[in-house]
Amino acid sequence: MIPATHRQIRLAARPTGYPRDDDFRIVESPVPEPGSGEFLVRVVYLSLDPYMRGRMSDARSYVPPVAVGDVMEGGIVGEVVRSNHPGFAVGDVVEGRLGWQEYALSSGKGARRIDPALAPISTALGVLGMPGLTAYFGLLDVGQPKAGETVVVSAASGAVGGLVGQIAKLKGCRAVGLAGTDAKVRYLTEELGYDAGINYRTAPNLDAALQATCPGGIDVYFDNVGGDVLDAVLTRLARGARIVLCGAVSQYNAHQVRGPANYLSLLVSRASMTGMLVFDYHDRFGPATAELAQWLSEGRLVAREHIVHGSVTDFPEVLLKLFAGENTGKLILATGAS
Amino acid sequence: MIPATHRQIRLAARPTGYPRDDDFRIVESPVPEPGSGEFLVRVVYLSLDPYMRGRMSDARSYVPPVAVGDVMEGGIVGEVVRSNHPGFAVGDVVEGRLGWQEYALSSGKGARRIDPALAPISTALGVLGMPGLTAYFGLLDVGQPKAGETVVVSAASGAVGGLVGQIAKLKGCRAVGLAGTDAKVRYLTEELGYDAGINYRTAPNLDAALQATCPGGIDVYFDNVGGDVLDAVLTRLARGARIVLCGAVSQYNAHQVRGPANYLSLLVSRASMTGMLVFDYHDRFGPATAELAQWLSEGRLVAREHIVHGSVTDFPEVLLKLFAGENTGKLILATGAS
Repeated sequence: MIPATHRQIRLAARPTGYPRDDDFRIVESPVPEPGSGEFLVRVVYLSLDPYMRGRMSDARSYVPPVAVGDVMEGGIVGEVVRSNHPGFAVGDVVEGRLGWQEYALSSGKGARRIDPALAPISTALGVLGMPGLTAYFGLLDVGQPKAGETVVVSAASGAVGGLVGQIAKLKGCRAVGLAGTDAKVRYLTEELGYDAGINYRTAPNLDAALQATCPGGIDVYFDNVGGDVLDAVLTRLARGARIVLCGAVSQYNAHQVRGPANYLSLLVSRASMTGMLVFDYHDRFGPATAELAQWLSEGRLVAREHIVHGSVTDFPEVLLKLFAGENTGKLILATGAS
Repeated sequence: MIPATHRQIRLAARPTGYPRDDDFRIVESPVPEPGSGEFLVRVVYLSLDPYMRGRMSDARSYVPPVAVGDVMEGGIVGEVVRSNHPGFAVGDVVEGRLGWQEYALSSGKGARRIDPALAPISTALGVLGMPGLTAYFGLLDVGQPKAGETVVVSAASGAVGGLVGQIAKLKGCRAVGLAGTDAKVRYLTEELGYDAGINYRTAPNLDAALQATCPGGIDVYFDNVGGDVLDAVLTRLARGARIVLCGAVSQYNAHQVRGPANYLSLLVSRASMTGMLVFDYHDRFGPATAELAQWLSEGRLVAREHIVHGSVTDFPEVLLKLFAGENTGKLILATGAS
């Protein structure tokens, strides 16, 4: 039974600092009818990702922001419930950036069919989706880790970071992860196979903790957070180190971004800091996803999901969990039975 | 006639902020006798370079600093006046990092003979020395400019920057230079062949000036200064841009280095920022110097020198000229007749 109306989360205002409830509006809208070449998806899982903060802001970015009044952008996994599209049939499971709503129309652009036999369909938002591919290309293509090197990862228990350390280990590197609670640090070393973990919130001296865990210096740093952690890592770079700039979640809600004061360590260490966006690797998503799926099926990758059960209207609250670092693994909102 | 004593500039204290006269001590010392395998050099030209500020500081760097009480480090060109070294004869002209003094002993390590027939011997401190090689390897190896791309250079009228723009032009790029006076900006476009110049001190809006002179964005930025200029350039990067981090003269005398607040533009633009030190290219100095000498002899490179005539005791004063940006071209102190 497809209802006549559904709920959408629309951007009501551009947040300053952390997003608040009244930056969003819950709108009851008619469920649309798919036109020719379109299909209708019932949303089952909604993805919460750090990039979303950028989409709420009109600061210069790699894509335009969500317009005030529009449905908030977000990746989803759902089921095709009506279709006038030759490539998508009713019953197909799809992943796509279809936004914060209970039903979504798609022309198929940017959407892909998911094979439920391969892995739980929610993994299409995590290890077999954008976070997995970000970890894969960011570490392997930009970071260029060599066996025996030390790879440091921030937000290491998150959707991306949890995979970066594991892929580093698969490539013969040492992996050291930073996370914000003792439980997460234990998760890194006990479940994900990180060689060492640092609680960056309680470490009395982050520089000393990095020195102790990375005595030969840091060869690759996969940065998801920016801020103090980036500055501390900069002082411990090995010669020729590569910093993969994937995100800066510590800065996304800041009124003024703070630049890394120790950036001249790049000069001292002849190191590089390179920004990466996963979409640039689009033409290699297929083989990369296949390799990730194989590692997953062989038990060589652990991909924990942090699934919150609720409804689309829980978006603002669950998003704040992400920025507060309350999740371990990929944060997903499940909206009812799948 | 070799005197019995000579003058040396010794570091007396680690400066805070700009170096002051009393951070140095002028010491009258005996002129040393070369032992076996050594030779004595009478200093003719002394080089003033931004890196010297770092050598006065005990902050972490790529080499240890000058010890308090030691002769200040510096490159010189001089004449061999006594020799017990088979490779260096009396009358040879040499270049080496022999320090701020009127006479210096050398074992030959780090010293090289200069051919006075090739070019004025002072060029061994500039276009045919460390600044020339820094421009050459920094631009070509790290910056990887492609014909048609836009290369932006800060401190563009300086010893390194003046060459970067010219080499960029030789490689078919557009070159845009930043300098701190209108006269320097004219020098960039009228003498060095830069396509455009910006006076970063008087431009009412640096972002707008960069946008006007680099309408397609900035592909390569050769950074000698850091600070506000780096931040402005970061907002105008073309996709895939390369920032060559060669120095940060705006920050060397700062009590607290300010990191680039716009560093997340590296992510937006999928750009890189890479530190470089010329010494890493040591095994390619020969062919690179030969290529620079050929361009110079063909009139394809302009290499202006800013020579101050005085004595070794003028070091602190002339060094401040460098940090105040009073020089155009390579700043050199000539200590008497050569």
